[in-house]
Amino acid sequence: MMFTWPISIYYEDTDAGGVVYHSNYLNFFERARTEWLKAMGIKQTELLADDIAFVVKHAELDFKVAARFEQNLIVESELTELKKASLIFKQRLLDDNGVSYCEATIVVACIALSRMRPRAIPSNIVQEFNRAS
Amino acid sequence: MMFTWPISIYYEDTDAGGVVYHSNYLNFFERARTEWLKAMGIKQTELLADDIAFVVKHAELDFKVAARFEQNLIVESELTELKKASLIFKQRLLDDNGVSYCEATIVVACIALSRMRPRAIPSNIVQEFNRAS
Amino acid sequence: MMFTWPISIYYEDTDAGGVVYHSNYLNFFERARTEWLKAMGIKQTELLADDIAFVVKHAELDFKVAARFEQNLIVESELTELKKASLIFKQRLLDDNGVSYCEATIVVACIALSRMRPRAIPSNIVQEFNRAS
Amino acid sequence: MMFTWPISIYYEDTDAGGVVYHSNYLNFFERARTEWLKAMGIKQTELLADDIAFVVKHAELDFKVAARFEQNLIVESELTELKKASLIFKQRLLDDNGVSYCEATIVVACIALSRMRPRAIPSNIVQEFNRAS
Repeated sequence: MMFTWPISIYYEDTDAGGVVYHSNYLNFFERARTEWLKAMGIKQTELLADDIAFVVKHAELDFKVAARFEQNLIVESELTELKKASLIFKQRLLDDNGVSYCEATIVVACIALSRMRPRAIPSNIVQEFNRAS
Repeated sequence: MMFTWPISIYYEDTDAGGVVYHSNYLNFFERARTEWLKAMGIKQTELLADDIAFVVKHAELDFKVAARFEQNLIVESELTELKKASLIFKQRLLDDNGVSYCEATIVVACIALSRMRPRAIPSNIVQEFNRAS
Repeated sequence: MMFTWPISIYYEDTDAGGVVYHSNYLNFFERARTEWLKAMGIKQTELLADDIAFVVKHAELDFKVAARFEQNLIVESELTELKKASLIFKQRLLDDNGVSYCEATIVVACIALSRMRPRAIPSNIVQEFNRAS
Repeated sequence: MMFTWPISIYYEDTDAGGVVYHSNYLNFFERARTEWLKAMGIKQTELLADDIAFVVKHAELDFKVAARFEQNLIVESELTELKKASLIFKQRLLDDNGVSYCEATIVVACIALSRMRPRAIPSNIVQEFNRAS
């Protein structure tokens, strides 16, 4: 299953090379994951109140084409693995013509925030992702 | 009394116009205030553990000359007013020749973080700033 | 005349105090101004190709209520003055109930980018803003 | 050969989870690479004027321990491969006790910026990196 989310490129995203600064692609992918959770009715604010957080543990990024100021792009996100305490996402930043600007594999862990230790993903979130697949 | 702190301009600070993106000057000024507190032996991490935070309530910024990638600049910070629950800083971003790139007046309030309400600045911090003046 | 633009608060916008980091409000206001120009059919990318850029010369910010992760807010933007080579905007970040989180006065100058010197705002942009008023 | 560069963690680097926001580690690594070039007498500003830029093509990041506000850390950078048109770096963010917070492999390509096409790394830069090894 695929979740898509639009991203507009603003001045703040670019650098003096005239293109999007590389670390900002990670922000675009995080926004898309947050919106996917929101679309499933999951509020990370409520999770935080229960000492539950999702943190990025590993990221692999391929920067394929430099995105530019004022482009309107989309992030396509796919869940490729759902484990007891972690999730693996494949995410791509694309334009309307299907040109791929950046592709990522992101490993997200579920943690008890106060102890920074892995914990099981809450069952309602597991159910939502299973329903989505 | 004046506190000075060096700032180097990196790609991340610039935008597609080739110069420093305007909101990043606020970050430079914040770094300088943080380092000033550190130089006085005040750790904001410890303040946070006591539910005390400093937050920016008002900012006025004059963008005079655009700073550029790879410049080595300094922030000069001055405390112009020390009230019961707030501080007013004048800060300037300068180069070695005294050229001023950005000038700011920043009003910082001391708050009880959990309630987001004003509270008196801890007396040891008041003492440190008085000693510095 | 008023232009409104939605802003969602993501992790990237927040800091360890649990609320939006102060300089990011300037980014939200910049996004809203960029989208306003886009809604008028004005592409800043094309302006840059003609050596024309809009740069922030002065900003005054009142931080009224701290915005938080996952909030959905809007920026209301108003043009209060249109001069030969500069524009003054009033902008506010609000929630659905009209609560104001941050208010700003932003002075934007039109410049010849290669020389970093003021120049007249292109007449089609003046016309669009006049039509909007 | 190893280049080390200090990094201080400021509010701007953290998020509402109380720790450094994940994409900011990429910024720290970029700063360290920029400073390494500067230490070799290489100015990227001059390279840009000759239409030469270094861009990140691939990045792999392991987030091991969450860094926190006010920590003083160092980036250790190592060049592991020097090709005709690209460089591969291993970089680590460490504290004084050798605890590793984040580790990265970063592939940087040399490009002709106006065409966004690979080009040979300038010979003086190759020489500097060879001397450093």
